[in-house]
Amino acid sequence: MSRLDFYRSLATPSDRRILFMVLDGLGGLPHPETGLTELETARTPTLDGLAGRGETGLTTPVLPGVTPGSGPAHIALFGYDPVEHQVGRGVLAALGVAADLRPGDVAARINFCTLDGDGNVTDRRAGRIGDEIGRPLAGRLDAMVDPDGVEIAVRHVKQYRACVVFRGAGLEGKVADTDSQQTGVPPLAPASLQAGSERTAQIAQGFVERALAELSDQEAANGVLLRGFDGYVPLPSMEHLYCLDAAAVAAYPMYLGVARLAGMEAHGVADDPEAMVAKVLEMGSKDFVFLHYKSTDSRGEDGDFNAKVAEIEKADGVLARLVEEFDVVMVTGDHSTPSSMRAHSWHPVPLLVASADCRANGGQGFGERSCVQGALGRVRSDEIMPLVLAHARRLKKFGA
Amino acid sequence: MSRLDFYRSLATPSDRRILFMVLDGLGGLPHPETGLTELETARTPTLDGLAGRGETGLTTPVLPGVTPGSGPAHIALFGYDPVEHQVGRGVLAALGVAADLRPGDVAARINFCTLDGDGNVTDRRAGRIGDEIGRPLAGRLDAMVDPDGVEIAVRHVKQYRACVVFRGAGLEGKVADTDSQQTGVPPLAPASLQAGSERTAQIAQGFVERALAELSDQEAANGVLLRGFDGYVPLPSMEHLYCLDAAAVAAYPMYLGVARLAGMEAHGVADDPEAMVAKVLEMGSKDFVFLHYKSTDSRGEDGDFNAKVAEIEKADGVLARLVEEFDVVMVTGDHSTPSSMRAHSWHPVPLLVASADCRANGGQGFGERSCVQGALGRVRSDEIMPLVLAHARRLKKFGA
Repeated sequence: MSRLDFYRSLATPSDRRILFMVLDGLGGLPHPETGLTELETARTPTLDGLAGRGETGLTTPVLPGVTPGSGPAHIALFGYDPVEHQVGRGVLAALGVAADLRPGDVAARINFCTLDGDGNVTDRRAGRIGDEIGRPLAGRLDAMVDPDGVEIAVRHVKQYRACVVFRGAGLEGKVADTDSQQTGVPPLAPASLQAGSERTAQIAQGFVERALAELSDQEAANGVLLRGFDGYVPLPSMEHLYCLDAAAVAAYPMYLGVARLAGMEAHGVADDPEAMVAKVLEMGSKDFVFLHYKSTDSRGEDGDFNAKVAEIEKADGVLARLVEEFDVVMVTGDHSTPSSMRAHSWHPVPLLVASADCRANGGQGFGERSCVQGALGRVRSDEIMPLVLAHARRLKKFGA
Repeated sequence: MSRLDFYRSLATPSDRRILFMVLDGLGGLPHPETGLTELETARTPTLDGLAGRGETGLTTPVLPGVTPGSGPAHIALFGYDPVEHQVGRGVLAALGVAADLRPGDVAARINFCTLDGDGNVTDRRAGRIGDEIGRPLAGRLDAMVDPDGVEIAVRHVKQYRACVVFRGAGLEGKVADTDSQQTGVPPLAPASLQAGSERTAQIAQGFVERALAELSDQEAANGVLLRGFDGYVPLPSMEHLYCLDAAAVAAYPMYLGVARLAGMEAHGVADDPEAMVAKVLEMGSKDFVFLHYKSTDSRGEDGDFNAKVAEIEKADGVLARLVEEFDVVMVTGDHSTPSSMRAHSWHPVPLLVASADCRANGGQGFGERSCVQGALGRVRSDEIMPLVLAHARRLKKFGA
């Protein structure tokens, strides 16, 4: 019996509601002058209070030493094995904009790009065109017709980014990126990486050629780069696995996408604390609300220690207005993003779970070092869901 | 190679003796007034002394978030994977009363019950009849003969409880309970839950019909309810796996049953500290003695914080009189039973191992929070056996 099947056999409904808040890239490293991390520096009365009455620990995202991207990191947080369930970015992008996606469809990300007269890429982001240009261009590509009868849908994502969904018989998703990540060279041809994906590569090639013709009236966005091809295989849903009616609240399409992949009802909001609080409070009928807070990661990637501290403090303020609405509150990050590294990292991430059934941690606050002493100990990130379900009395006893 | 086969390849005899003491439901949650758990509240000089000179940690029973019943919790403590080796309660009950059980037999639990004139259950426990009524009734059912030649043995367990063992060709154990857990309705017919178990269901139906005729002279115990059907598949024994001559001392049949399942020589005793001490001291020739202390769990399930504290203190007194007899002493619980929850829970359980080869923990005592800091760290409960064997110098070096 698989681990998830085992947990599924124990899942049971309950009226205890769960807030599952992910501060993207939460974990950090010490500032050389103070010796304190971003989280240890931030004034976080709500997080400290929850840590005091709850239990803390540290999560290992994926496996020791592994630096995860946001996709696998969230797949693990939702309880799935992120190595077993690898999902291409094209699929996450398409789910993120709520594109119609059915099992067997193949999806890829699109960047509009600039090509010179020789067909070489001069700008991989087409001069960072805005939505007002990108959206109608995506619409024009969506209106093109594939002569072989494959259904091809194009959806705008943001600025110079879009995504494409291929639907038809005999399509598999193991196709190489056409984006070589370089300028001064032409885009690559879409190449099949595995037997079974040849037809997809051929259909994608036709799509690219029609797109070049369609975009020939454009100066900046006169080409397309495709990447992150993958076939869509839905995950077993949270409803199916955990008997949870689950919702997601997030400002960025990627996180809405991974939430939809897990069967959550996904709600986009403005990237603004007031909007997040209001949307979560609308979710009163939901058993489980995943709230994604992005800017902690963004400021870490900027390398701006103080700005990341400020975002953690803002997130603490969001949490302050939500905790009373839930029986179980979980807070962690999907991975660390130390501002000193300006990138995601493999370091374990602070974790707290607060409910009525806790071995209260006491007054050590919520930080990377204090969590080492917490009652939850080390937790692999795909173990958080069962812990949270247990605290919500949503797992039956195993055996008599 | 399976994990158990690997450990088996390393097992070797030694003269170091192991006391393996399980305080049922040991783990708890803080009292709202004092902030201390039952174990943290109890005065436990022996446990504290062992924790000081030994190593402590916390065990996760089964998997994170999982609340185990006593059966799988003990199967894990004895080193077996409790998800792989799921054993029905009928088998544990039959082993608990030392019924003759052979591979391929099917066993089920019996409750004597009261039926009204329409055949509806009015009392699922037959007015809680005592042993003086239950035992001879079990004997009468045991004397009945199956017309198809299936050997059927009935053994009394306690009060209104008994068990039945079916032996014959073509019997499998996937049969549904006849106990609907309700009154005012008739017992269910025994139904096959899986291809291969049809014959068992049919034989059980005949048994129930003969039992009704046999019990028609009874007022309270005029019916039977069957549950926990399962086929008997013995576990590889502790002798086979670990080269251990192992004994169990327990007051409740269930724990004697799970010990016999692991091939231990099982000794029932009165539920009394003096009797336990005396019986363990009789086991001087045994390599390994499993001592089960039940009342910590019972008082937790009662929701009586102070009574659970008192039982922990009594168990500490039992231990005080035994430690000198053993080279390695292990103490833990099979799961937590916080009195605030009045039920088993998923919370990790304090663990200690004391031997001559310890990184002594120092003077922090033995409690849920102090064990977070212990040298053993987090241990899945099926990892305890190899640790204990190592401390008894019963595992050879792996490789050169």
